[in-house]
Amino acid sequence: MTVASSATLYVVGTGPGDPELMTLKATRIIADAPVVAFFAKRETAGLARSIAAQWIRADAVELRLQYPFTTELAVDDPCYGRALDDFYGTAVAEIGGHLAAGRDVVLLCEGDPFFYGSSPAILDRLDGAYACEVIPGVSGMSGCWTRARIPMVHGDDILTVLPGTLNEDQLFERLRTCDSAVIMKIGRNLGKVSRAVARAGLMGRAIYVERGTMNGERTAPLEQIDGQSAPYFALVLIPGRRHRR
Amino acid sequence: MTVASSATLYVVGTGPGDPELMTLKATRIIADAPVVAFFAKRETAGLARSIAAQWIRADAVELRLQYPFTTELAVDDPCYGRALDDFYGTAVAEIGGHLAAGRDVVLLCEGDPFFYGSSPAILDRLDGAYACEVIPGVSGMSGCWTRARIPMVHGDDILTVLPGTLNEDQLFERLRTCDSAVIMKIGRNLGKVSRAVARAGLMGRAIYVERGTMNGERTAPLEQIDGQSAPYFALVLIPGRRHRR
Repeated sequence: MTVASSATLYVVGTGPGDPELMTLKATRIIADAPVVAFFAKRETAGLARSIAAQWIRADAVELRLQYPFTTELAVDDPCYGRALDDFYGTAVAEIGGHLAAGRDVVLLCEGDPFFYGSSPAILDRLDGAYACEVIPGVSGMSGCWTRARIPMVHGDDILTVLPGTLNEDQLFERLRTCDSAVIMKIGRNLGKVSRAVARAGLMGRAIYVERGTMNGERTAPLEQIDGQSAPYFALVLIPGRRHRR
Repeated sequence: MTVASSATLYVVGTGPGDPELMTLKATRIIADAPVVAFFAKRETAGLARSIAAQWIRADAVELRLQYPFTTELAVDDPCYGRALDDFYGTAVAEIGGHLAAGRDVVLLCEGDPFFYGSSPAILDRLDGAYACEVIPGVSGMSGCWTRARIPMVHGDDILTVLPGTLNEDQLFERLRTCDSAVIMKIGRNLGKVSRAVARAGLMGRAIYVERGTMNGERTAPLEQIDGQSAPYFALVLIPGRRHRR
């Protein structure tokens, strides 16, 4: 593709939740943007938009990119991939329309854009046709381990980051051999994650963190957390060797 | 220990290198600080201090915490641990002196303080005696994968973070089974890291990034990097499944 206009797509990480943990660069770019796009789940304001709210211009055009589903479809359902392709296609058309008209667009992403985010699916489809710049952010996991006051890795420690969407045996196998681990995307995977942590003999040092750096933040030993589900923005930390309890 | 004064130790992440990637919170706290401490290797200015320079008050007391060695001693040399203990002991005494006198101290850390940093060794020795707050930062690895334009992990990808200080067989074993990996602390481990990456069959998708987000930044396929050593602030990225080359 050739560059179709002088407009730029900025993919901007908003950090883990506390608006003061945004970078200077993120706030500068958002405050300049005529068009601000953000992902949101149905019936929510969109976390990245909430974090960045005070920097969005009153006259900015806002593009709410609402996921077609959150947990109603399993990822191995053939409709999942199709619905997601449609969703990204529509989002790209909307964003691309503004870029083609010469208007810069900021796409807001919670945490760090290149760490389990949805933004690469947008970026891949527009990069090359338009100038694109990505601004890293403080990751959700950094926000959580800081608030839990857990130095995660030291010296020769290996850090393993596991999505809670893996099956129990996969989680167990990786946890069994880990020095230090972060389990992301807890949500309705909580029961499975807890079983895998217990099987790996790590329950004694697993810490649960919910909404790290945000209002309603909660930190507790995983063994004190009951139930089969938790918020999506929850994770489990297994500290590295020097900080084993 | 009891709280000896009303002063606070702030352990502040300065991000990966570009001063504009500091958080709002980091800049506010540094700009207020009467005492600013930072780590530095011999004959260097100290990276974290360089990043934060424009925010340090002209009348701030600066505490340069100079490592007693960098690569002259092997980590398994018995003198290594002793020299490091002395170093931290002296640093804690200096910082603690200011806190006891009622002066807030900011300890600057490049990247994110709880991700392979030296600050936990200071924090552990002062926490409890004084109020302490830790401010997360954009990690060096986020800065590097952003600049290399590599979305690292998607969906169910597992991320493995490996220190380049591990031996070749340990690196090989972890790389062999990884989805996506970051190898930190390249420095004089470059030759060993390259051999382990090649043995694991990953040379075709390994990316080398040096001084990500800083002046002198360099990104290249690892297979094009010759030699046995690289700067300490270099790392190797193995992108996740959706971005295999």
